[in-house]
Amino acid sequence: MKKKYINVGLIGYGTVGKGVVKILGENKKIVLRKVGKPICIKSICDLKPIDKPELYVKNFRDIIKDPEIDLIVELIGGYEPARTVIIESLKAGKNVVSANKAVLAKYWDQIFTTAQIYQKSIYYEASVGGVIPVVQGLSEGLASEEVFEIKGILNGTTNFILSEMKKHCVPYEEALKSAQKAGYAEANPSFDVDGIDTANKLAILASLAWGSWIKVKNIPLVKGIADLDIEDILITQDFGYDVKLIGSAQKTKDGIDMSVQPCLINYDHAFTTVENEYNAIMITGKDSGDVLFYGKGAGQQPAASAVVSDIINLSKSIITNTVGIIPDVVYDSKKKIKILPIGKSKSPYYLRFAVIDKAGVLSKISGILAEFKVSIARSLAQLNINGTDYGRIIIITHETHLEDLEKALKQINATKSIVKHKTVKIKIEV
Amino acid sequence: MKKKYINVGLIGYGTVGKGVVKILGENKKIVLRKVGKPICIKSICDLKPIDKPELYVKNFRDIIKDPEIDLIVELIGGYEPARTVIIESLKAGKNVVSANKAVLAKYWDQIFTTAQIYQKSIYYEASVGGVIPVVQGLSEGLASEEVFEIKGILNGTTNFILSEMKKHCVPYEEALKSAQKAGYAEANPSFDVDGIDTANKLAILASLAWGSWIKVKNIPLVKGIADLDIEDILITQDFGYDVKLIGSAQKTKDGIDMSVQPCLINYDHAFTTVENEYNAIMITGKDSGDVLFYGKGAGQQPAASAVVSDIINLSKSIITNTVGIIPDVVYDSKKKIKILPIGKSKSPYYLRFAVIDKAGVLSKISGILAEFKVSIARSLAQLNINGTDYGRIIIITHETHLEDLEKALKQINATKSIVKHKTVKIKIEV
Repeated sequence: MKKKYINVGLIGYGTVGKGVVKILGENKKIVLRKVGKPICIKSICDLKPIDKPELYVKNFRDIIKDPEIDLIVELIGGYEPARTVIIESLKAGKNVVSANKAVLAKYWDQIFTTAQIYQKSIYYEASVGGVIPVVQGLSEGLASEEVFEIKGILNGTTNFILSEMKKHCVPYEEALKSAQKAGYAEANPSFDVDGIDTANKLAILASLAWGSWIKVKNIPLVKGIADLDIEDILITQDFGYDVKLIGSAQKTKDGIDMSVQPCLINYDHAFTTVENEYNAIMITGKDSGDVLFYGKGAGQQPAASAVVSDIINLSKSIITNTVGIIPDVVYDSKKKIKILPIGKSKSPYYLRFAVIDKAGVLSKISGILAEFKVSIARSLAQLNINGTDYGRIIIITHETHLEDLEKALKQINATKSIVKHKTVKIKIEV
Repeated sequence: MKKKYINVGLIGYGTVGKGVVKILGENKKIVLRKVGKPICIKSICDLKPIDKPELYVKNFRDIIKDPEIDLIVELIGGYEPARTVIIESLKAGKNVVSANKAVLAKYWDQIFTTAQIYQKSIYYEASVGGVIPVVQGLSEGLASEEVFEIKGILNGTTNFILSEMKKHCVPYEEALKSAQKAGYAEANPSFDVDGIDTANKLAILASLAWGSWIKVKNIPLVKGIADLDIEDILITQDFGYDVKLIGSAQKTKDGIDMSVQPCLINYDHAFTTVENEYNAIMITGKDSGDVLFYGKGAGQQPAASAVVSDIINLSKSIITNTVGIIPDVVYDSKKKIKILPIGKSKSPYYLRFAVIDKAGVLSKISGILAEFKVSIARSLAQLNINGTDYGRIIIITHETHLEDLEKALKQINATKSIVKHKTVKIKIEV
């Protein structure tokens, strides 16, 4: 059967959904040139009636059942009914485009197994890095690579907040408000600022890179930016660092070293040019070396653009009738990938001690660090600040096992005669 | 017919060819996971016998004729016999992978028309940006985009030379020697240092972006780095700029503004973190905004990695028997794309005047610039350098039409009572 056009059913008509309809409307010529046939939105489902009543469908199952629809775009977000939409669509013989990192990361195995069984495809470029074509870059562009490391600024909201803090010298709470005003942060920002969104995206990239399902809950450290102090951003600037929320996964001989946490990035690294809602992902392969992808990670048009690109690319497979012959995500659900316990993770760290200004404080702190094999690369003591008995000691460590550092800090923090409050510790990315 | 494996014929066994054989040998598991079948090198053709005599074939036509070969990898370089290999392979029903930007840019129309007629594919990711998956990124990842601009550091050799000049404060000739020693520059470096290689890659990207064949010979300005003075690199550093060889193509209402030339890049731009053999390409789309790709643009393994990724991706299409059903490069050979005459190109510029130290020089120069509507943003006069009568005047202009600036400079350069030698002019990228 020769298809005259591709019929799309859109489920979820929020910001991104509206963007998709807009782009498909405006870029008809480009679509026709790339696909060879027009792409039409046949139905749109949303909780409430929409501005295009002629396309409105109340029940998503009516879209899934519609035999004329070739491709379903799931833009609901969250776990349910998004998971149901995806799974039922695949089972009904539909191909799916989704931007939903949460549902993908959580139901990776179920989704791709279903796609494989029913020989259908699910494309999800917009789920990671917004407009950046990193899913395809990783799975096809770097198809031949043995991946050593994935490292990314994967969340536009937190990156916007960090940029605001730095630019205007304001604390986290104030920068969060600016992000909310600019539409980059939700009223309840927890999913973004606590690092969960980054963890989802990191799990997707790691699963793709190493051919197995790496679960979000197995990432041993997921820490957001909510307790970052502007003081540390300013101090570390003088040391030549920029603070970014980094999701990273690195192959070591004892397992994948994975974490989501604020990190210090050296000013000569490309990541330090990534400001505001931009994202960047660095993939390091055995033969490729470092490959970096950079672009807008948030915003209506960038996300919608990625969804439309997926629709275009998937439509080409639908027309050639080749969907699912080779699964898009090839992995072995039984293959277990070992994750390195976080204590074994090795890095240099930035430490800020808030100390009592009295003789022997630096010697005491450095003594305890040495006892736990934490070696000092640089230190700076500023005591008697503004004539008070408050002081701070900044230490940049050499590479150290996190468990050693934590033991040392536990002991230092417990010594009330030296420290005034809990020591700040930020990983330094190398 | 179910294929048990994919047979590859390799034509051209130089540095990259050897890298391809090595990667395919080492990454058998990855290939099998991605393709589902093994990929085997069946024959290798080169001018002289090779270290794998069992695979050696003297005449490339024997490979093209071999009915067991599914895919031909052309790694000869240059125009002939590379063009013949590609065209005859497609005509013989073979799919092709090539890393040859020169032959692609020059015979774009013939190659893709042949591929379309014979329903075969040619993949060429390694032809632009080395390991960076920018060809796929542009044609698929950003499939929905109306592209406004493409801007890139597209040549590893020149970028390496510029990094050397800056790092060691040495003149061009000395940095070129280092690049030759490091294996990044040929004995005759003209193809790289004169901007020709960059022009080829720019033509390929622009043809992809705007769906028509944009010829290298129609790029109105192709200027290399050979006459860059280390003095200007040092001066512009103080102004907050880095010098890079940039290929750029920008949509304007009067045509595509295209050029290859050394440009000044502001230090907050990601391009300034691109050093040594690295390449970077920024694509700006209507909905996507800026998307940047970055990675190694030169070297055996990065180039070979991109070729192997092409082999893997093309093999998937061969197995599913879907090659060429939808042409990979969709364009209208009759569609004419207007190129903006270079004189109409608008930019700010850096100017360095070598002047005679006497009263009224600055006034004279600024007067002539004003006469031709070239307006000054910043200026710095350093006269009486080391007690001589030599002096220099640095001017950063506002945005100006190149033709106006050139008229002004012609008049200034002709006024022997003010200038000692020809004025240096470098475009500032904004």
